Amino acid sequence: MYRFLSQFLLLFLFCGNITLAQKEDSLVIRKIFTAAISDTTAYHNLRYLCTQIGGRLCGSPQAEKAVQWSKTTLDAMGLDSVWLQECKVRHWVRGNTEGLAAARGASQPVRLHACAIGGSVGTGKSGLNATVVEVKDFEELKTIGRKNIEGKIVFFNHPPDQSHYNTFGSYGELVRYRVFGANYAASYGAIGVVVRSATVAHDDFPHTGILHYADTVKKIPAMALSANDAEKLGRLLKADPRLKVTMKLSSTEYPEATSCNVIGEIRGAVHPERVIVLGGHLDSWDTGQGANDDGTGIMQAIDVLRIFKALDIKPECTIRAVLFMDEEMAQRGAKKYGEFAKAQEELYRSSRASGSANALTAEATQAPRGSHHVAAIETDRGGFTPFGFSIEATDGQIGKIRGWKELLLPYGLYLFEKGGSGVDIRELKSLGVPLLDLVPDSQRYFDFHHSASDIFTNVNPRELQLGSFSIAAMVYLIDKYGL
Amino acid sequence: MYRFLSQFLLLFLFCGNITLAQKEDSLVIRKIFTAAISDTTAYHNLRYLCTQIGGRLCGSPQAEKAVQWSKTTLDAMGLDSVWLQECKVRHWVRGNTEGLAAARGASQPVRLHACAIGGSVGTGKSGLNATVVEVKDFEELKTIGRKNIEGKIVFFNHPPDQSHYNTFGSYGELVRYRVFGANYAASYGAIGVVVRSATVAHDDFPHTGILHYADTVKKIPAMALSANDAEKLGRLLKADPRLKVTMKLSSTEYPEATSCNVIGEIRGAVHPERVIVLGGHLDSWDTGQGANDDGTGIMQAIDVLRIFKALDIKPECTIRAVLFMDEEMAQRGAKKYGEFAKAQEELYRSSRASGSANALTAEATQAPRGSHHVAAIETDRGGFTPFGFSIEATDGQIGKIRGWKELLLPYGLYLFEKGGSGVDIRELKSLGVPLLDLVPDSQRYFDFHHSASDIFTNVNPRELQLGSFSIAAMVYLIDKYGL
Repeated sequence: MYRFLSQFLLLFLFCGNITLAQKEDSLVIRKIFTAAISDTTAYHNLRYLCTQIGGRLCGSPQAEKAVQWSKTTLDAMGLDSVWLQECKVRHWVRGNTEGLAAARGASQPVRLHACAIGGSVGTGKSGLNATVVEVKDFEELKTIGRKNIEGKIVFFNHPPDQSHYNTFGSYGELVRYRVFGANYAASYGAIGVVVRSATVAHDDFPHTGILHYADTVKKIPAMALSANDAEKLGRLLKADPRLKVTMKLSSTEYPEATSCNVIGEIRGAVHPERVIVLGGHLDSWDTGQGANDDGTGIMQAIDVLRIFKALDIKPECTIRAVLFMDEEMAQRGAKKYGEFAKAQEELYRSSRASGSANALTAEATQAPRGSHHVAAIETDRGGFTPFGFSIEATDGQIGKIRGWKELLLPYGLYLFEKGGSGVDIRELKSLGVPLLDLVPDSQRYFDFHHSASDIFTNVNPRELQLGSFSIAAMVYLIDKYGL
Repeated sequence: MYRFLSQFLLLFLFCGNITLAQKEDSLVIRKIFTAAISDTTAYHNLRYLCTQIGGRLCGSPQAEKAVQWSKTTLDAMGLDSVWLQECKVRHWVRGNTEGLAAARGASQPVRLHACAIGGSVGTGKSGLNATVVEVKDFEELKTIGRKNIEGKIVFFNHPPDQSHYNTFGSYGELVRYRVFGANYAASYGAIGVVVRSATVAHDDFPHTGILHYADTVKKIPAMALSANDAEKLGRLLKADPRLKVTMKLSSTEYPEATSCNVIGEIRGAVHPERVIVLGGHLDSWDTGQGANDDGTGIMQAIDVLRIFKALDIKPECTIRAVLFMDEEMAQRGAKKYGEFAKAQEELYRSSRASGSANALTAEATQAPRGSHHVAAIETDRGGFTPFGFSIEATDGQIGKIRGWKELLLPYGLYLFEKGGSGVDIRELKSLGVPLLDLVPDSQRYFDFHHSASDIFTNVNPRELQLGSFSIAAMVYLIDKYGL
């Protein structure tokens, strides 16, 4: 179409009944929007992180480069404070050998697009070679029973149910096979496991992700298979159930390494001890560039600070961006930050209990004793057009956020739903901190998620920057009105 | 992120207060959703149209192939009626020569990414070679004046204003230079015009589109320049204002050709004479594959009929898909359909005036005399995640549509705004027909629009199919409750 429908746009931008009291907020939010959408710093930073550093699994040299790059980037922004928060991380390395092939008798083996599931043990140099038991789910495994599984490779071939509007629904039904498939299969005596990738796409990319080995069963090698090749292997097995599969993995777990959360903040002008924390995770899977998971979240977190600085908005509370380390394997960064927040909260409470309100006010220009988290916002669902927020908070707090809807609707934010939050901020739940997750469009997320297609070129700058806007606007409102 | 937040999804899917009366509708709409999202027929048909037929400007052999393919596809669907509606179309051909280069003195010319604007006259074999007057807008052209423009090439270099949430806002400010730039420049004596592409992307693709020559001024050759090369040419001109540009275009306008709208319908079980029409346009620009503009609209229109057939929903009114020819150049298909609809409406009104209501009821099982359009829905803003509809109708009708919001919100449709409609259905406005435009996410549309990047691989199957769902659900509700 080529004609521009100006009436529509005007109505769209200024719809709703904005009261006079909201007019000032409306203007500030418009400025935040313009500062977010018109500046491509976040996009160009993402290009660097993705193409010059690349996939950055915790414990890897790339993860450490990402830490250094982030620290340098935050240092250059003229923030009030930038620091590293050390944590221990797992150090799992995929290695160079990663192969899966199916062979029918003496014929040429069919190579399949597969990769090690994160945390998998290796196969040893000789690899595994065994017949395959294909199942759709854990129930079917149980029905087939140990005597038909022992010494074989189990193949979980569970296709996605596309009939969820939100693709996290489909993912949620599939991810269990990747996470727990090895345990279940091993408990029936399997020697290896192959899992159809947890994606709604019909693609050739294997999608990796973490697995959890139980202490009670043998750790067996586990591979993720692309959706297209899962269908192919299914067809091959139908034609020849005695088909054998060869699996070779050189993955290894090394001793734990030291890494860091990277933290930058603008100190609150009125209540420096009250903290609004926001962030995504700096680590990523190693198969792609960690663009939508979660390079975009990192860039949005940094961008929120840039926007506040650019507009010279002096927040009442401290605005802190945390670039969490190790979301993908064991959330060690999140745990570390959670411990820190708890200790700070205790200090804050004991300060308040011992001192008077006046004493606290007098301290406001100095470093406060302890700190209190007002809210936490996570961005880890991809850099797509945002729809709103999933909120884990009291009904009263959710109601308050919904009261801001008319201010945000012109920018496509319509969804303010009670719901779960991300794992990086969940550690703060026990402190009673309201938790918010940015909810972007989910349709394309699992096309890229944890695969070699999670690359910079699959990010659109405007969609990315709309995420920066959404978080910045929410931070502005929480800072001004509290929760 | 790797944990699935099931609480969030459930709440998201079942939010809002759905009354008991809406429960049945809610179930049918859920079925329509599943039928739309789980079936990839539309996506695979789009692959064929884009990759086997490709760009299909009206009058071209590809456009005729597209007509035949559509007719065959609709014929195979077991519809009640499929027919072609002839119309005359312009026949403009780009030709093989299309070059734009800038040269500073005797140095090697710099080739620029440019293409003819649709409908442009050619330059003749020797091409144009002239100095350049760069302007930002029409105002600046006026200020510079005829004596500084005569015999030169005018370069409209107007960068996009990114600060619209809806990118149609940015496009609307740019498209005037493409459409009217040649007229303005010629009226000041320019011999050619180069226009920065009407896009919000920073890319190397020239984005074409139609221009309109006025009868009162000389027709001068016109080219669209990629955004990146518009910046480059700007820099070159700054360094050397005497720089010359060479323009070569072999584009030619041939005598008008005959083409067709392609129409398929499911006849109404109760009111066959009442028609709900929906559609997109079959033609496209020739530089890409016409994927998001408007292959996706064509596939959604066909898909709505498929969904009704698959679910065996027998609509009370006739559901008619029109694949309009020639939206991009002169909307000849739309005009033809408009004339047809007007003639049918007259027949319908005179039938009602002459016959009794009973007589009309008795006729309902036979071919009705004349027909009346209940509503028209256009889909021509790209195959991206839909947000709702722009509605050109009475306040009462818009209110009625908004009353269905709770049924559609679980599928991301939140926007039901008074606004303009697309040009293919606008011909029906004078008949008082309520007009609806599907409104998808606009962020990526102008990255692809009218350029070589408007290709199949830039369409996501789920986003495409959400569009099919949105229109099918709206058709279902309009058919059941009227407007």
